[in-house]
Amino acid sequence: MSVPEKIQGWAAIEAKGQLRQIEMPTPKIGPNDVLLKVLACGVCHSDLHLINNDWGYSTYPLVPGHEILGKVVARGEGVHHLALDTVVGVGWQRSACLHCEDCLNARDNMCAESQATCVGHPGGYADFHVSDSRYCFPLPKGMEKPESAPLLCGGATVFNPLTSLLEGNLARTGRVGIVGLGGLGHFAAKFARAMGLELTVFSSSPRKKQEAEAMGAHHFIASTQPGAIASQGRTLDMVLVTANVDLPWSEYLKTIRSEGSLCFVGIPPSAIQVRVGELMGHRVRLTASPIASRAQIHQMLDFCAVHDITADAEVFPMTQVNDVLQKVKANQVHYRAVLTR
Amino acid sequence: MSVPEKIQGWAAIEAKGQLRQIEMPTPKIGPNDVLLKVLACGVCHSDLHLINNDWGYSTYPLVPGHEILGKVVARGEGVHHLALDTVVGVGWQRSACLHCEDCLNARDNMCAESQATCVGHPGGYADFHVSDSRYCFPLPKGMEKPESAPLLCGGATVFNPLTSLLEGNLARTGRVGIVGLGGLGHFAAKFARAMGLELTVFSSSPRKKQEAEAMGAHHFIASTQPGAIASQGRTLDMVLVTANVDLPWSEYLKTIRSEGSLCFVGIPPSAIQVRVGELMGHRVRLTASPIASRAQIHQMLDFCAVHDITADAEVFPMTQVNDVLQKVKANQVHYRAVLTR
Repeated sequence: MSVPEKIQGWAAIEAKGQLRQIEMPTPKIGPNDVLLKVLACGVCHSDLHLINNDWGYSTYPLVPGHEILGKVVARGEGVHHLALDTVVGVGWQRSACLHCEDCLNARDNMCAESQATCVGHPGGYADFHVSDSRYCFPLPKGMEKPESAPLLCGGATVFNPLTSLLEGNLARTGRVGIVGLGGLGHFAAKFARAMGLELTVFSSSPRKKQEAEAMGAHHFIASTQPGAIASQGRTLDMVLVTANVDLPWSEYLKTIRSEGSLCFVGIPPSAIQVRVGELMGHRVRLTASPIASRAQIHQMLDFCAVHDITADAEVFPMTQVNDVLQKVKANQVHYRAVLTR
Repeated sequence: MSVPEKIQGWAAIEAKGQLRQIEMPTPKIGPNDVLLKVLACGVCHSDLHLINNDWGYSTYPLVPGHEILGKVVARGEGVHHLALDTVVGVGWQRSACLHCEDCLNARDNMCAESQATCVGHPGGYADFHVSDSRYCFPLPKGMEKPESAPLLCGGATVFNPLTSLLEGNLARTGRVGIVGLGGLGHFAAKFARAMGLELTVFSSSPRKKQEAEAMGAHHFIASTQPGAIASQGRTLDMVLVTANVDLPWSEYLKTIRSEGSLCFVGIPPSAIQVRVGELMGHRVRLTASPIASRAQIHQMLDFCAVHDITADAEVFPMTQVNDVLQKVKANQVHYRAVLTR
């Protein structure tokens, strides 16, 4: 197709504003870039933070969206590995230098020159999207559907520590605890079960017991009950925190067995306070995992294709974006919202 | 030899008391135990804590000493792997159940039934010592000397994280920072250099620069100079904290490169406060390492034999034990004190 002169996107014009549909010049398609026709885009809590400028680096107009499913409709002259019409996913990261020490060591997610998909660039709440082709991940056959979009950020974020030597080092027979059963937590639960892990879900909502069990949780802990968290003793190899709130971390540390870890993918507002003695006796590690690298995202998509994993998502037309953002903000979505065109 | 009816040991009769020489019945030699004639015993800061009942579990009379070098002079009926006259070392741990999950996984140092060499048992400040033979480590040829004694606790404690996947995961080309150049720190420096690591020493005493360089440090940071800690940027794969004081941990976290760790073998008095964001971006882990397992102690002794590593120690006759404890308390010993008989 010929490249359109303009793209149409839903944008915040100022911090905390409603999104409005605006027209922008199509971003330049560099030699390694592709132009995607956006098919679907997941709604992540980070989009709300960007709209509100919670992190202080938003620029306006701001088109959110970083869980993009799109079809390749044009390619820069250096792009040979992605055919036209390929359906690809794009996550939080849109590029990296690919030659620094981190990039060369498959840690491109930590590259100092890393750029974000919808910070300083229009994101996926638009009809077309330009991205570096090296950060476009072809969807395995059968995965080209809206429910796959949230894998690109939310899914990858929890897949990473569940497969990593550094954060988890989970044996095949490992036992994992998931704190919080929201967007990230539900992916973690699905992955853990597909990996054959013994799964404990901690949730402050006792009503989520049934849902957790439907996802295959072997144990459910209503975490606000006094004494409930530590009730099972040191039985877990890894406790993966997907919640963004302050919780009694010392209690969770008591659930972790020798050489296990307490790993954060959520970011609680306050600092974690930990006595060295709480870690030392059983060699428990305090870890935190960022977005995934390119290799990890490919690996996750392959795994999801084999195990038929996508998000439990509510799908809405893009035109309802403002209502959907309200629902996400109020935690009323099960478990992830996806906008489609 | 025939087993003596009594042993003579230097004991604290009450908390914080001077040590006095007392006579005790020789402990029962169980089927898996050996009787050692004590040749030398290192003086560890933990001995001071035990004498003072700082940890609340001391019982009196208390004979300290858990860095023991001794010769096997009698054996229980189940002991076949240690010949009489073998010179062995004994560290902090005197026994474990050897059948629990931790023990079966080579984590016997975390066994819930683990017993300590000089807690509830007379330790190495005595003429004879009874220990479980499974926790007596034969000294490799050439290592049977007083300066080897401190390896059994101080040495093993830092060898463990320097060789471990969990705390450090140091590549052959790794860069390690050592915080504090005392008893533990000097072992860490020697090990790191023998392992071929790039070594940075952080010390609050600028006068230790020369000593650090003599031990092979490539870089020395006088850590109380404003801005000095973070001055080299994110360059270290592991920062190993051997100090027992509160330090600006956030500054140290800024020195750690992607996938590195801040590992404690010292126990600062206050809790560590860390924001998840300080760990997440570069996948930095906060870890702490306990005493070493049996396998690790064997491995360390073999390594020390190859690389000719023992403590830089001041050696005193056992009769000077009270003066030596005063010197250790005042940090006047370079770098470790050993008592001999």
